[in-house]
Amino acid sequence: MNTRHLTRLLGIELPIIQAPMAGVSSPAMAAAVSEAGALGSIGVGATDAGGAQAMIAAVRERTARSFNVNLFCHRPAVAKDSVERAWIDRFRALFAQYGAPPPDHLSEIYQSFVTDDAMMRMLIAERPAVVSFHFGLPPADAIGALRDAGIVLLASATNLVEAQVIAAAGVDAVVAQGWEAGGHRGVFDPDAPDDRLGTAALVRRLAGSIDRPVIAAGGIMDGAGIAAALRLGAAAAQLGTAFLASDESLADAGYRAALASDAAHRTAMVRAVSGRPARILANNFAALDADIARAAIPDYPIAYDLGKALNAAANARGEYGYGAQWAGQGAPLARAMPAADIVAVLAAELAAAMDRDHG
Amino acid sequence: MNTRHLTRLLGIELPIIQAPMAGVSSPAMAAAVSEAGALGSIGVGATDAGGAQAMIAAVRERTARSFNVNLFCHRPAVAKDSVERAWIDRFRALFAQYGAPPPDHLSEIYQSFVTDDAMMRMLIAERPAVVSFHFGLPPADAIGALRDAGIVLLASATNLVEAQVIAAAGVDAVVAQGWEAGGHRGVFDPDAPDDRLGTAALVRRLAGSIDRPVIAAGGIMDGAGIAAALRLGAAAAQLGTAFLASDESLADAGYRAALASDAAHRTAMVRAVSGRPARILANNFAALDADIARAAIPDYPIAYDLGKALNAAANARGEYGYGAQWAGQGAPLARAMPAADIVAVLAAELAAAMDRDHG
Repeated sequence: MNTRHLTRLLGIELPIIQAPMAGVSSPAMAAAVSEAGALGSIGVGATDAGGAQAMIAAVRERTARSFNVNLFCHRPAVAKDSVERAWIDRFRALFAQYGAPPPDHLSEIYQSFVTDDAMMRMLIAERPAVVSFHFGLPPADAIGALRDAGIVLLASATNLVEAQVIAAAGVDAVVAQGWEAGGHRGVFDPDAPDDRLGTAALVRRLAGSIDRPVIAAGGIMDGAGIAAALRLGAAAAQLGTAFLASDESLADAGYRAALASDAAHRTAMVRAVSGRPARILANNFAALDADIARAAIPDYPIAYDLGKALNAAANARGEYGYGAQWAGQGAPLARAMPAADIVAVLAAELAAAMDRDHG
Repeated sequence: MNTRHLTRLLGIELPIIQAPMAGVSSPAMAAAVSEAGALGSIGVGATDAGGAQAMIAAVRERTARSFNVNLFCHRPAVAKDSVERAWIDRFRALFAQYGAPPPDHLSEIYQSFVTDDAMMRMLIAERPAVVSFHFGLPPADAIGALRDAGIVLLASATNLVEAQVIAAAGVDAVVAQGWEAGGHRGVFDPDAPDDRLGTAALVRRLAGSIDRPVIAAGGIMDGAGIAAALRLGAAAAQLGTAFLASDESLADAGYRAALASDAAHRTAMVRAVSGRPARILANNFAALDADIARAAIPDYPIAYDLGKALNAAANARGEYGYGAQWAGQGAPLARAMPAADIVAVLAAELAAAMDRDHG
């Protein structure tokens, strides 16, 4: 009933959402997933209104079904010149090792949706069926305008307080992002203490406490995982890492090779790559993070400007260990196949898990 | 089938194990749980062979059913005089604040089972139905002798490699202890990198990879959580925090008050209390931990000698925030009632969760 309410609201058949993964998911992935009966997502946090509009058009060329457009709602970065200079200096020797100069200065490479009026106007004009928020919420008037435009809204929470804020703001459903999840952790305030709640504990706590459907996210890789999430009281499950190795993923060769190897067994939550905590394969960049104090890291996404440059320099010399190889704790279970086939397998496994309970 | 095999092996009706919690669980708790159809456990890691024998007798006075005796198999502590002196000095001012002197020196207050021949002889003589290991495994000859005595063996794993070692050693089932779990994390080597796998991700990974029944532990507080664990492929669930507030729990008034308050929403994984990572309510001791480098903390359980003294000093002045208030991430869902009633509620909730799938 819980599940049926949400799938009807989202306009989908299966209680499955493909996680928006800016830089990794693609319009082709989102369209394939939506065509297969789940909810495809695109992440537009790393582009501007024009880029996002083009991505929306690219999904619509491939499907008439509903899909989700995800926005980053981080607190706009505060530049701190001395921190950024020290950050560049810290990596100077490493850049030299790869024969490239470090960036001269670092910029806020992504504009937060909370200040992006052009993105807002584009969304109201395009009216995607679903819009989701990560890292917080946009201002109340933006939420009101998106709702008035008939758009269903989702937002990520990592704890009860964030979920309560989301519910009070009039967002339709809460994505409960557990500690296991790959990529950027959706914490509203990256400097606040983090309880690091696992997906199961978080879902169970939210399901009993807030008056909104809960979508479980983090460590879910197969139909058994989705079935377990539903038993915990989730109305649906959101899977990202499960689609990382799909044909439509933008993951590069180094990332795919790491995912298919023993390296997939080790992930770490790191802040040094982008400036915000994010779960990544335990690669060279993750190893660096352990020795770096939080205060030394520039604000998100300023730090990411250097992270991307370092990866590009290393890649040019055949070293892939500085990539933003986001991955959740379920990474060893990622399947390399077309995204539509992944949805079909998940649906079959979910049905089998439900059936087993009857036997 | 998976579940039936394990419950038959353990001699119980329900796929539920009450976690051994040295210092918090009691023979009365274990007996009440076993009488109610689940597996009760006592933790004897904090006592010697004589103390453990008395605890076993106290359980047997109350029930003829099977129960579990849990042993700590940590690497014996290595005393480092300068580290221990510095540790005492670090807390000198805090002891003074509570009007008590710090300990003169710190001792290895618990002997590891891996070197405890008297404990081994006692177990062979008493033959409890089930014995479980935490922090690692005893030597192969001890495992062989316990098996030859007809004792069913369990051991905790926090990752795939530990689980493989456990399976290869001939232990009957693996307790998959997720990051959410309260109390001491069962990592074999506390100085090795820890992937901090959530319960769901860990169970899913082990269930497909090792040829032993998997028991899910960490963040499971109710029948829905147990049902979810079974869907993930676990044969049973182990719950500790769910019994923390039971009538038979040895948790003191300060601990119970914290559990029943908003404080239960915040836990942290800390090393400073005992010398090994353990999840605890985010109390004063947990706050101290954040500023302490790992190398400054004496070996487990040497550090715990000071931790217990500090708590005693603070308690004497009415401050309960230095207690070893172990708790998992599900702490806000702990129920204050007799342990037998908790088992009955869990069984009813589990049956209801299974039934719902039929509807």
